[in-house]
Amino acid sequence: MQRLIFTNDVAAQLAGIVAEIAPNRVYILTDSNTEAIGNELNTFGAKMITIQPGDEHKDLHSLADIWSELSLSGATRRSLLINVGGGMITDIGGFAAASFKRGIRFINVPTTLLGAVDAAVGGKTGVNFLHFKNEIGAFAAADAVIISTRYFSTLPAAELRSGFAEMLKHGLISSADTYRRLLAFDIVDADLDALLPLLEENVGVKRRIVEIDPREQGLRKALNLGHTAGHAFESLAMERQAPVPHGFAVAHGLLVEMVIAHLLEGFPSAELQIFAALLREAYAPAPAITCDDYPRLLDLMSHDKKNVSADKINFTLLSEPGTPLIDRTADTDTIKTALDLYRTLLNI
Amino acid sequence: MQRLIFTNDVAAQLAGIVAEIAPNRVYILTDSNTEAIGNELNTFGAKMITIQPGDEHKDLHSLADIWSELSLSGATRRSLLINVGGGMITDIGGFAAASFKRGIRFINVPTTLLGAVDAAVGGKTGVNFLHFKNEIGAFAAADAVIISTRYFSTLPAAELRSGFAEMLKHGLISSADTYRRLLAFDIVDADLDALLPLLEENVGVKRRIVEIDPREQGLRKALNLGHTAGHAFESLAMERQAPVPHGFAVAHGLLVEMVIAHLLEGFPSAELQIFAALLREAYAPAPAITCDDYPRLLDLMSHDKKNVSADKINFTLLSEPGTPLIDRTADTDTIKTALDLYRTLLNI
Repeated sequence: MQRLIFTNDVAAQLAGIVAEIAPNRVYILTDSNTEAIGNELNTFGAKMITIQPGDEHKDLHSLADIWSELSLSGATRRSLLINVGGGMITDIGGFAAASFKRGIRFINVPTTLLGAVDAAVGGKTGVNFLHFKNEIGAFAAADAVIISTRYFSTLPAAELRSGFAEMLKHGLISSADTYRRLLAFDIVDADLDALLPLLEENVGVKRRIVEIDPREQGLRKALNLGHTAGHAFESLAMERQAPVPHGFAVAHGLLVEMVIAHLLEGFPSAELQIFAALLREAYAPAPAITCDDYPRLLDLMSHDKKNVSADKINFTLLSEPGTPLIDRTADTDTIKTALDLYRTLLNI
Repeated sequence: MQRLIFTNDVAAQLAGIVAEIAPNRVYILTDSNTEAIGNELNTFGAKMITIQPGDEHKDLHSLADIWSELSLSGATRRSLLINVGGGMITDIGGFAAASFKRGIRFINVPTTLLGAVDAAVGGKTGVNFLHFKNEIGAFAAADAVIISTRYFSTLPAAELRSGFAEMLKHGLISSADTYRRLLAFDIVDADLDALLPLLEENVGVKRRIVEIDPREQGLRKALNLGHTAGHAFESLAMERQAPVPHGFAVAHGLLVEMVIAHLLEGFPSAELQIFAALLREAYAPAPAITCDDYPRLLDLMSHDKKNVSADKINFTLLSEPGTPLIDRTADTDTIKTALDLYRTLLNI
């Protein structure tokens, strides 16, 4: 059973869990951005492994470097790997641990809000391969995930908002009440102490969904809300050499998919206005798209790995905040209409 | 639930299972030795992937080649990989499948007796890394394993005897009756049709053990019988540039460990004579060791990955054929005495 700990005293909690697991060797994986945090947490003589930061280094080369460090320093099945960093570190470190000697224990200490809310729970680990994201990996749960908001104060504002988009998504698919409390939270001028309990509730939502459906056969698909359109925005921005943070693309994807839900499932129009106002305040600028971009966006949506047919596109939709509808589809005309309405809502 | 099929009509059985799984793309992995068998089985338009044969190619490089073939030809989570070959192919192919997009289905068609009895059941997959055997891998069960003895007729005699050593081990740890029937089988001039039902019973033994203890926490350790001493013989032979087949090393390891069991657990001395006679007939030549080799052999035994302390060495022992005793240890003096007796039994 994976333990999930919310604390602002990470060092003490981590040392306690390490003592309990009593591994024969301990390793802390960081990238150069989180190395200082890793050193600060290392009160138990762990060997430090540091790799280069950034999604472009979440690859086989870095993975082989981690395996080498483990192998050559005599790690065994009773050793422990602690991943300290953003989603890149918890993804690659989780897979390194899951595949070393067919699986050793690991602990995640996410240092970004996105990592805490999205990547550190759920057991998805992996690396990019060729030009495919997360092409190689495993489902493997960390022994413990230790979550604190104290590391977020050093992050750029955009990074915090990016993670908050995933929190909004969890609110939307779980309860209207949770969603309203998130809307009331000021992410632009964030109070990190007030964020910790919201984060705890939020990660709990994801955790329950993953426990019910670990292999993404049913309910877990609700977690894809906002991501079919969001990935298309993200890929389009990448193609134009102007990448946007993942959560910004997801935030805008959420609005597109709310509009589709409005058209097909009666999702209330007042909710569209409320969410558009949030996007204008916290997730500007909006993607600079025109109707000329629709064919490429549709193409990107239909190539999403969750999709199985080309003319109808899979979505998770909503009948209202808190009520997700999985395994829904929309045809291309509906999606084009939704993109028109989305642009109108944001004056694009 | 993994299916285990014993048949001499592999092609028909395989085609039936592929039709049932209804994957969107099918791949057959072979090495250059088994490519012809793969082609013969390919009645359903699978894409062939062929890698170089031999344990020295069970590495990250071959693994990346397999992943590339899958990625670049558009394999998805609903695709299927069929591994046709010896243990090298089922090991690397199983891990390639287990890690591609966090896991796709795979089927094993072992073409060697060792592969059928040892590597194709049990969910251990992986590749060598640096100079460590099976350092990187996963526990992942094939959807189906299709076992036939018809491919064994083209193998060198040593290969057949090598696999038979693992069958003897399964007899020893499961039932005196099974063990006696194996002793009565003539592996030197083998009747492959008569071997198929023996093999079915034998793989069933391993399968039941693995089902009870998939993660090697208890009973599954019984499968290590003969392997602590056997791996030491195998490594010593490798160091001397005169490698021996895995099963030959295991067969001799079984006798060493029977002698230890005789010294510590009352394993009957008559059984030692019977097994020594089999070794002289079917597993000659014996390892050319003298007492000068004992320190190195002990060193190799204590570095076995199942071991945790250096002065006592872990073994699975036996009180009699059919009754394994897991988590036993022997000290170095006992092991030296056992090696003396082993050499006496074989006139080394």
